[in-house]
Formats: sequence, C-alpha cells, structure tokens
Amino acid sequence: MFKGNGASPGVGIGKVLLLKHEEMNIQKKIVQDVDGEEKRFLDAVQISKSELEKVKEKALRELGEDKAEIFGAHIMVLEDPELIDATVNKIKEESVNAEYAFKEISDMFIGIFENMDNEYMKERAADIKDVSNRVLRTLLGIEVVDLSNLDEEVILVTNDLTPSDTATMDKNKVLGFLTNIGGKTSHTAIMARTLEIPAVVGLKDVTDKVKSGDFIVFNGETGDVVLNPDENTINEYRKLKEEFDKNRKELEKYKGKESKTLDGRHVELAGNIGTPNDIEGLIKNDAEGVGLYRTEFLYMDRDDFPSEDEQFESYKAVLEAMNPKPIVIRTLDIGGDKELSYLKMDKEMNPFLGYRAIRLCLDRKDIFKTQLRALLRASMYGNLRIMFPMISSLEELLEAKNILEEVKTDLDRENISYSKDVQVGMMIEVPSAAIISDILAKHVDFFSIGTNDLIQYTCAVDRMNEKIHNLYNPFNPAVLRLIKLVIDNGHKEGKWVGMCGEVAGDKRLIPMLIGMGLDEFSMSPISILPARKLINSLSYEEMKKISDEALKLATADEIQEYLKKVFA
Amino acid sequence: MFKGNGASPGVGIGKVLLLKHEEMNIQKKIVQDVDGEEKRFLDAVQISKSELEKVKEKALRELGEDKAEIFGAHIMVLEDPELIDATVNKIKEESVNAEYAFKEISDMFIGIFENMDNEYMKERAADIKDVSNRVLRTLLGIEVVDLSNLDEEVILVTNDLTPSDTATMDKNKVLGFLTNIGGKTSHTAIMARTLEIPAVVGLKDVTDKVKSGDFIVFNGETGDVVLNPDENTINEYRKLKEEFDKNRKELEKYKGKESKTLDGRHVELAGNIGTPNDIEGLIKNDAEGVGLYRTEFLYMDRDDFPSEDEQFESYKAVLEAMNPKPIVIRTLDIGGDKELSYLKMDKEMNPFLGYRAIRLCLDRKDIFKTQLRALLRASMYGNLRIMFPMISSLEELLEAKNILEEVKTDLDRENISYSKDVQVGMMIEVPSAAIISDILAKHVDFFSIGTNDLIQYTCAVDRMNEKIHNLYNPFNPAVLRLIKLVIDNGHKEGKWVGMCGEVAGDKRLIPMLIGMGLDEFSMSPISILPARKLINSLSYEEMKKISDEALKLATADEIQEYLKKVFA
Repeated sequence: MFKGNGASPGVGIGKVLLLKHEEMNIQKKIVQDVDGEEKRFLDAVQISKSELEKVKEKALRELGEDKAEIFGAHIMVLEDPELIDATVNKIKEESVNAEYAFKEISDMFIGIFENMDNEYMKERAADIKDVSNRVLRTLLGIEVVDLSNLDEEVILVTNDLTPSDTATMDKNKVLGFLTNIGGKTSHTAIMARTLEIPAVVGLKDVTDKVKSGDFIVFNGETGDVVLNPDENTINEYRKLKEEFDKNRKELEKYKGKESKTLDGRHVELAGNIGTPNDIEGLIKNDAEGVGLYRTEFLYMDRDDFPSEDEQFESYKAVLEAMNPKPIVIRTLDIGGDKELSYLKMDKEMNPFLGYRAIRLCLDRKDIFKTQLRALLRASMYGNLRIMFPMISSLEELLEAKNILEEVKTDLDRENISYSKDVQVGMMIEVPSAAIISDILAKHVDFFSIGTNDLIQYTCAVDRMNEKIHNLYNPFNPAVLRLIKLVIDNGHKEGKWVGMCGEVAGDKRLIPMLIGMGLDEFSMSPISILPARKLINSLSYEEMKKISDEALKLATADEIQEYLKKVFA
Repeated sequence: MFKGNGASPGVGIGKVLLLKHEEMNIQKKIVQDVDGEEKRFLDAVQISKSELEKVKEKALRELGEDKAEIFGAHIMVLEDPELIDATVNKIKEESVNAEYAFKEISDMFIGIFENMDNEYMKERAADIKDVSNRVLRTLLGIEVVDLSNLDEEVILVTNDLTPSDTATMDKNKVLGFLTNIGGKTSHTAIMARTLEIPAVVGLKDVTDKVKSGDFIVFNGETGDVVLNPDENTINEYRKLKEEFDKNRKELEKYKGKESKTLDGRHVELAGNIGTPNDIEGLIKNDAEGVGLYRTEFLYMDRDDFPSEDEQFESYKAVLEAMNPKPIVIRTLDIGGDKELSYLKMDKEMNPFLGYRAIRLCLDRKDIFKTQLRALLRASMYGNLRIMFPMISSLEELLEAKNILEEVKTDLDRENISYSKDVQVGMMIEVPSAAIISDILAKHVDFFSIGTNDLIQYTCAVDRMNEKIHNLYNPFNPAVLRLIKLVIDNGHKEGKWVGMCGEVAGDKRLIPMLIGMGLDEFSMSPISILPARKLINSLSYEEMKKISDEALKLATADEIQEYLKKVFA
C-alpha cells in the first residue's frame, strides 16, 4: 500500500506499465566474437529500420505527409554506408563491442554536422542523434514504449509524465497515472483531470516498487494505491469504481442546465484547456466556454516557434468548435518552470520570480506580435477574449494593450479582418496587481484570478516545494481577502471577474466564491458538472453572509473549520 | 570608463588591488631535475610555514588564543613526516612535479581522515586541506592576498566580496570596492555602506579589464568608474571627494540632535548591523538604536553552529555598548540566498520562495531555542527587542511566540535571569503578513517592514535578477499601499511600526514615510545623519497630505515624478 496525493478523481484497476526514461550507459569492451558482434549490430539496424517504417506509416495516416517525412529521413540515415560500414569496420579492426563502435562513429558525424554553420546540416545532426539513440536502445535491450500504440489497457507508472507523453498517448488505453513526483497542481495532475483519467501523484519511489505487469488498484481522490491486492480489496475497489461511475452518470442530468443559485444568480462555468484536443472534454462536460486556454503547449515539444498560421489554426479550431461560447485565450506564459528547447534562457536563481510570461513577451515583441496576429485573425471564427498573464503593474498592462493596437493597425493596413468585439483582460496572479486592481479595472474588460500563482507569491511559498507544502493553503485569509478585493474592484468598474486557478473547481471553496460574487469559474472540464450541481443547491444571499463571516477569521484553519461546520 | 550601480556613496581615488579567487589546475608532469623539484617543494613548505607563523601571531594579538591555536595546528601539519617525506619520495620515485606529488599524497590523507566516523578526525581533514591549498598556491605562484594585512591603501576589485573577505579586511586600508556582480541590495553593497566605504557594484567584467597597480577613480553614488584617468579627471574626482567629505563633515552637527519634524513629530533613526564590529559605525553616526541586527553573520563562515555562549557574547556586546538604546535582534534568517556550509539543505528550485528564516527555525527547534536562550540571557545587559523574520501567517507567529515562552520557562526552572521587558515583534516582508497585519498586530509589540523582500514578493520579482530589474521598484503603488496599510493597522492596536529595508534610508522616500506615520527608520549607519537632516526640515502635517496624494497615483513613475516636483 502506498499513499500519494490524489490528483484526479476516479478509481483505477488494472495492469501496470512501467515507463522509465532510462539513461544509456555505454562502455568500451573488447569482444572475442567479432563476427557475432557485427551481426548483432546489423540486426539492431534492421530492427530499428522496421520500427521506423511502422512509425512512418502511422504518422502518414494520422499526422500527414510532412510529419511522416521526418521518419523517412531517419530511415535514410540507417541506409548511409558512411555510418554503417564505418561502424562495422571499427568493430572488426578494434575488436570492440557494437554499442561503443556505433556511438563513437555516430558521435563523430553528429559533431561534424553540428559544427557546420548551416541550419540544414544542424537538423541532420539532430536526425542522426535520434536514430543513433534508437539503435543504441535496441542494442542495449532498453524497451521503448510507444504510448500512441498500446496493445492493452494499462495503468501508467512513471517518475513524471512529460507533455509529449500526454500528447502522444492513446487515451482509450490508459486507465490511470501513478507518478513519483508532483502535487495537485503539477502538470501531470492538471492533464489527468483534463483527460478525465484517475491519477495519484507524489508517490515518491513507486517506480522502484512496481514492475510492468503488476496488478494494481488505486483511488484518485484519496491517493491510496494497493499493489497486488487480495480478492477482497479488488472487490472493494470495483465497488468504489461502480459508485464513482454512477455518480458521474448522475451528473449527466446537469448537462444543459443553467449554472445558477437557488435565488437566481447566474455564473459561468468554463473549462481550462491546453490544446484543441481538449475540446472533446469541454463538450462532454457541457462547458459554457473556455476560461483559460494555455497556449504554451502549442510552443512546447518542438524545434522552433509555431508559425502564425499554425497558431491561427489551433485558435480557430477551439473558437469554431465552441462558437458562440466565449473562449479566453491566455497569451504565452513561458519561463518559470516551463522552458522551450529552442529559446535560450539564462539560468535563473528563482525562476518563479523571474523573466516569464508577459515580461518575456514585452521584451520579445516579435514572439508576442506573431501570437496576437494569429489570435486576431482567429477572432473571426468565434467569441474570442484575450488575456495577459503575470501583469504586475499598470505600465505593463498598457504596454501590452499598445502592442495589441499596433497589431490591429498592421492588420488593417493589410486588409486582414478581425472581430471588433474581442474582450481584453488580464490575470490577477501577482499580489501587486490584486492590490491595485481598482486602477487596473479601468483598463480591462475582465479579470481572471490565477490562484495557483497568487497563493504562491502572496505567501512567498513555491507550490512545488514539498518542504513547505503546508504554507501553500487556499484558505489563507490573506489570499481570500485579495480575491474579495479583486472581485469588488472589478464590479465597481462594471467588469466581470473570473477565476482560473485550481481553487475555482474546489468544492470546499466554491460556496464562498459564490458569496464573494465571482462571475466566472474556469476549471478542469471534469469538475464542471459537480460544480454546477453544487451551485444549483446554494443561495447567493446566504453565501454572501457566510463569506463575510469567513473573511473575519484569522487563520486558514479557522476558515476551513467554519466552512465545514456551516456545510456539515 | 565603466558604469555600474552606485552602491555606497563617496569617491574612491587610488591603486587597484585585484582579488581573484583562482582555481588551481594541477597536472602531472615528468621532471628531469628531480633534486630541483624536491627543493622547490621543501621551499614552498618553508614559505607556507613562515606565513602561518605570522598569521598565528596576528590572530593571537587580535582574536585570542583559541583562534590562534587553529593556525598552530596548521603548522603542525607541515611538520608531519608522513605527509612531507611521502611527497618527497613520490617526487623521486616517479620523477613527477611537486604539485602533483603533494596533491596526490595530501588528497590521500584527506580522504582517510574524512571517512573516519569521528568528528576530531574530520576536522583534521579540513586542516590538511587548508594547509595543502596554501602549499599548492605557493608552488603554483598564485598570490594569496591577506586582506587583514595590507601594505598600502587600495581599491579592491573582485568578482564579489564574500562575508569572510569583509570580516577579515583591514578597513583602514581599503579605499573602495568595485565588483563584477550585485545590485544596490547585494551583500557587498550593504557591507560597503555599513563600513562607509565607497563602492560600485555590477560592473560585469571589471576584473578582466584592470590589473593590480592600475590607478582608478570612481564615484560610489553615480556608479562611474575611470581607469587610468588623465590629470583633469583626477582633479575632478579630487574635487568631488573634497565636496563629499565636506558634506559629511557638515552632517556632524546633526549628531546629538533629535530626529523630529518641524512640527514636532519624533521618529527613531536606528542602524542595520551584522556583527558587534559594526557598533563603531553606530556610535560614529549617532544611531538611536539598532533596528535590525542580522544574526546570520554569526552563523556564517564557520564549521558548526555557534554555541549558546558565543551567541550570548555577541548579543551582549551590542546591547551593552548601546544601552539603554533599543536593539532589535532578528532571529536567524538563513536559507534563500544565504547558506551554511554545515547545514545540509535540499537544493530548491526557487529558494526565495522556499525553506528559510522562521520556516527553518520552526522546523529545527533545536537551533531556534539555542538562539532564543542566548537572546534572553543577553537581555539583562540592555534594551532587547526580538524580531521574527518571514512570518506569513498568524499560526507561525503564535508558534514562534510559544517556543519563546517554552524557553523562558526553561530559564525560570534553571534560575537564569532575563529581562521581563523584552518586546517581541515581527518583520512584515511577506505580502500575506501585510494583508492580515490587523490580525497580527494584536499579537506583537511592533512591526518592522522589510521592504527588500516585500517588494520582491509583492511584485513577484527576484531583486537579484538583472533581466527584470526594472520591475523591482520601491515606488510601486501596490508596495506603498501595503506599507501604509501596515502602519495604520499597527497604530490601530497601539503598536509602533518601523522599517528596516533599504527604502528606510532612501531620501526620495523618507518624506512620504514620515507622512504615512512610520515610527522608526532603520538603515545603514552612514545614512542616519543625512536622514536626520532631511527629517528636521520636513513638516509632518504637510508630508501627510503629500503621501495621501501620492497614494492616489497609478504608477511608480507618476509617484516618483510627483514627489520630485513637490520637493523640487
């Protein structure tokens, strides 16, 4: 039995697939059977080639000719006599092992190509590196798990899932995630909720304790995980799963219903998404819009910035699919814990307090303008709202708005059309922005409170730091006061105020947020129907009184206890 | 000509002493003249020994027998035949260079001692390492600059000064500091102001551009530095220096004067200090107390925690020397960018948002209680005020106060006396603390606003990060609103409110802080007399109106412009 952080509700029952991103440790060895070694090498090349053929075919079917061509180039590398024959010669002449010989030769080629002052040649270096790693893994017997092509249903167990893992995986075959690291707000946790896959994170060393094929059951709400459970336990979890599935089915009847309190206050329940692929979850859960489209996923796991057209297509896809529902698209929030391989950034001592999000965009106007052009062009296809992240002062907001106006002028000159009704808003996630929200409200159409960062900065606590995890608490009275202040300041200027941090979907806090007057709640799509059910059972007037009372309390514990008592 | 950040006012004119903490690069070489190599080694040992004799004598005179004994042990290492003879044998037998032979042998001994499970033996390993480095530097011809024993007056040029550099240096011989890195609030900058030594920091690669012996002039206010200036420039800087010295002399007449406004509002002008050595600066500048005694220097540059008695002596020294003036001693603020070699801490992704200060002390009660015992014992010798850093919630404050009560109970039981009048306060440097300062004020005797961190967290900007330096701005309206809120909340509960961040000594902001009602200003001692002069020229009632007006403005620039205009 292990205990982790419940990260995405639901019950997982099934077989483990252990996913290890192993390091390759290659040592020089003298071999006796040189011919055998040559054969071992040529076999590995052959296996790698047929793997690549399969990947190429799949890519051709699913991703189109362009992407498939990449794998065609990889196959050609494996047919290059300069690489293959040179390796065979090295094995024979020096009586060395195939891994060592091949690595030496391919590293030499990679080095030559990398040092050429020519983009095409540098790309060739990357191709050789990819292919070389594939051959070496085959030689070393390191299994490569292709998540897009799973044979059976599995529970993925790994240190942490990367964005590319979640992007390529076959969601229909994955019954759950279990990871060593992470908290409720880590990437894996957020993705699991978006995909509606149950998950437990922060299990520390679960990857050392289980192996592929082990049977495992877990509860994504409590964080309980049982390895090789007995018959009774399995039955218990089956019952839990039935119950969970039943509850989820009951929620179905809230589809199509309005999100309003007993006394008739309407709010908007929207979804947080990362890619156009998430539209399915939005529709399935009857989202009333998108409150946060995190555009950084468009920029990740690639070799260069996405072009204006690529971005345009992604934004258009979501806007069109959800039209006329409002879609809040956040401009690039890179930096902090999110890096791009192709954007060299200085190492920072405190990246969360560093060069990120709007700070980077105001500095790199080229990147920012490309995104704004794509957004405005896409605005013709639905109800777009643009949102700036990490604004900490009026100056930054005005500068961002100025650049947006410049882009509009450019588009006007080029006779490219865009909607004139695009709302422009900002996130409130830096304490200074919350404190001067009266001033900022005059210059935006809306605020969206990002509680994850707001808590982090207000309490000076890195939410990823396990050692001070207890200080990261959404019930902190200072945080709740700031939220109230922002809502009041927004309303005074007639602007709507939403929330797109984890707190917006937290059923312990939704009643209080209703009482504070929050207009829009944006959350993992999976939380929308439970939230609607809850809100439909509340009285706004009553919640107002309760939130006023709670705001008088001195500590997070007192507030949490008070709310528990009221709703007991 | 270079331009850096003016870090400590004053004009420096003099010769460069370039201080490089060079790496030693030791390679094996085969030598022909083995006898010559043996002699070279034995000479280096002899030189090192006589250096150490001198250091020992100086330590005996200035630091006492205990400290001197350390160097006695070092000398004994150099008399150890196992080390010396083994090296000579290695040189002879293998025909290798002295550096290589000595390093191999001494590393072997260091390894043996380090791996023994015995504290005494581990200390021996550290001794051998120290001595071995000294001999190797001598062999390699790397000059060791002994800052405590300078022959002539110099301007120190270095990458960055370490606390031990500033602690050991002969202040009378140092005319200024010039460093590659750092901003106005870096350690070097703060130390320079404490020591009243002019300094320019953040000069990027000045250590590559100058060499020892170069003549240089600089202005510690503007950040201008001129290498090898012509006659005219030298004369210009001489004039500047005279003027600066004259101004400083004029300030003398504010010694002994009260710090009060034209309309009779009294405030307290106190000093920020790091060690008992800083008492001199306090007295010279007529400080009315200490508003911030940073105790972490007591813990730094040593091999283990300071004992209760050592701490007691340090606290007593300051309390006694300044009695009956109030001394605010801040409990340990380690972590963040301040590390202790003997306290293993996990690497953190965002140390400023991590496990530091009171968070560490509440977790490591052993460390905290030792300090509180030493503080309470010392309270008999003066007017002590205890201050907790980095409090972000009421729970932490109450827990810290509980531990203080436990320590008092212990002392009562042991019949150890302490003052019953020790005020207990906290720093306001985390936004959440400022926001709930109404609640916190009921549980403290005073607040002291730490603007350096408060700005950093409120605006989510690492103050050491050059890339976003423009966002770190004390005129930020959100920061000023928080300061006003804290002062008002303190006063509502009848508590005094001070400030010990850099802003407290900033003449651009002092008028506004007077208007806001700040009771105590704690700053680099060198800033006290200028601040007193300024405050004696202000009307409190007028400043109240000016600060109310400034607080209505929307941006840092508007506030700064407004204040400039008012005081033009």
